[in-house]
Amino acid sequence: MRKFKSIGIAGLGLLGGSVALAAKSNGLVSEIFGYTRSPETLKRACNLGIVDRPFTDFSEMVKRAEFVFLAGPISVNLEFAKNILKVKPSLLFTDVGSTKKAITDLVEKLFPNGNFFAGSHPMAGSEKRGIDEARKDLFTGRTVIVTPVKNSDTLAVGTIRNFWESIGAKTVIMSAEKHDEICCYTSHLPHLLAFLLVKMIEKKLSDSDVLACMGPGFRDTTRIAASDQEIWAEIFISNKKNMLLAIKNFKLELKQIEQMIEKNDIESLKKWIEKVRQMRNGI
Amino acid sequence: MRKFKSIGIAGLGLLGGSVALAAKSNGLVSEIFGYTRSPETLKRACNLGIVDRPFTDFSEMVKRAEFVFLAGPISVNLEFAKNILKVKPSLLFTDVGSTKKAITDLVEKLFPNGNFFAGSHPMAGSEKRGIDEARKDLFTGRTVIVTPVKNSDTLAVGTIRNFWESIGAKTVIMSAEKHDEICCYTSHLPHLLAFLLVKMIEKKLSDSDVLACMGPGFRDTTRIAASDQEIWAEIFISNKKNMLLAIKNFKLELKQIEQMIEKNDIESLKKWIEKVRQMRNGI
Repeated sequence: MRKFKSIGIAGLGLLGGSVALAAKSNGLVSEIFGYTRSPETLKRACNLGIVDRPFTDFSEMVKRAEFVFLAGPISVNLEFAKNILKVKPSLLFTDVGSTKKAITDLVEKLFPNGNFFAGSHPMAGSEKRGIDEARKDLFTGRTVIVTPVKNSDTLAVGTIRNFWESIGAKTVIMSAEKHDEICCYTSHLPHLLAFLLVKMIEKKLSDSDVLACMGPGFRDTTRIAASDQEIWAEIFISNKKNMLLAIKNFKLELKQIEQMIEKNDIESLKKWIEKVRQMRNGI
Repeated sequence: MRKFKSIGIAGLGLLGGSVALAAKSNGLVSEIFGYTRSPETLKRACNLGIVDRPFTDFSEMVKRAEFVFLAGPISVNLEFAKNILKVKPSLLFTDVGSTKKAITDLVEKLFPNGNFFAGSHPMAGSEKRGIDEARKDLFTGRTVIVTPVKNSDTLAVGTIRNFWESIGAKTVIMSAEKHDEICCYTSHLPHLLAFLLVKMIEKKLSDSDVLACMGPGFRDTTRIAASDQEIWAEIFISNKKNMLLAIKNFKLELKQIEQMIEKNDIESLKKWIEKVRQMRNGI
């Protein structure tokens, strides 16, 4: 278990804050550095004791930190990575974004002769957001997908995996491409459909009868529809190719069900649902 | 609080069994009669102490019971209602099906000169099923939508409401038509989308990387995809008109999002998600 003198967190939301808390509570770090664009959030992170040393300049934090986590929205993380190349290309760093190909492609392009980066995607997201929701046990028992890039330093990849495991997570190594394709179906499309389900009742929300008809099914299915717009708009666009294909496949499947309903084809519907039910029970 | 000498339950699954347990534990009934098509289930319900007196003939149970709950699949409940008209049109009865217009239309047609029926839809469903999942507190704190029909006896409607309230539920009176329209959006479409989300990963389920990429979002969003095929195929067909309209509206909304993603229109996506997020937080 490698211990760090300092870990720098860029982007102080639920994930960034929780990484800091977990690192501290597991004795992995002496000092947490923090950078974020909003002065209020930076101050709040210090007041909560999550950040020990605030930075108002990202480059300054990069110069001084031993290990940096990029925990901003995807597009901001890309800017952070560009900055790292300029300031300290030998820095050990990772990001915690929900898509991995965009940052992987960038790092491969910017650091063609080797780098100390691998992407991370902790399967521990939440519809909650902000530094006040940070928890030291957010990653306990969760899986973190680690995506090395071409010419990732092997030791660096090991250190990143080791960090996650030292705070109680399991790690799985995967290519960024495969990660983005799979997560499109296990996370991005589910978020899109949850958003759409809530949007569909927009005009009915003032009717108390509608609230009366909401059971636990609706609440669970749409829990993630309370997720942050900055993060999710970027995920959808950043995983555009997979998203558009998934939507296309989804519409084909929906069309089949629509036709079964139209034709009152109850037997086909039953068979289809039974198959799905068994798949779901097997997960 | 009216007490019954006997309550008959036709259809012994999660809902039927839970009605029996709740009625008993709240002291609302002396004896529970039970009827279901499967001899094994009937025996199991007796062994569990849920049913005191089993019937192998529905008409026999109708003749002897003071109050009957129809808790089978929708199409079976319709057959039960037809039978009640023949055997004992003065019987106090309700059903617990998830769509209300089909049974309402039938009762209005069969009992045009008055009846002792109102539909019930407890918002307490679950992906769990079967008599072994029955719980005496399934309805505690839940809402039950009660749907009277034309010429429902006022006293009968009051007794049915009162029964639900006596076992800890809240009741809301609604027309069957409005109920089915609303539940299409708060329950039926969410179930359909949850089924589809699981179906989309059918070919990927043997890949352990896919399981690694499933976070709590996927699990919550698809929990109801483990729901029973007999019940859900019937709900979709029974609420066909609303379902087809909801699917049509859903596809229109999906098309807009698809276009935003295609055009990299991140600002529109953010605005759209933010609006949805606020709606969801307000529920």
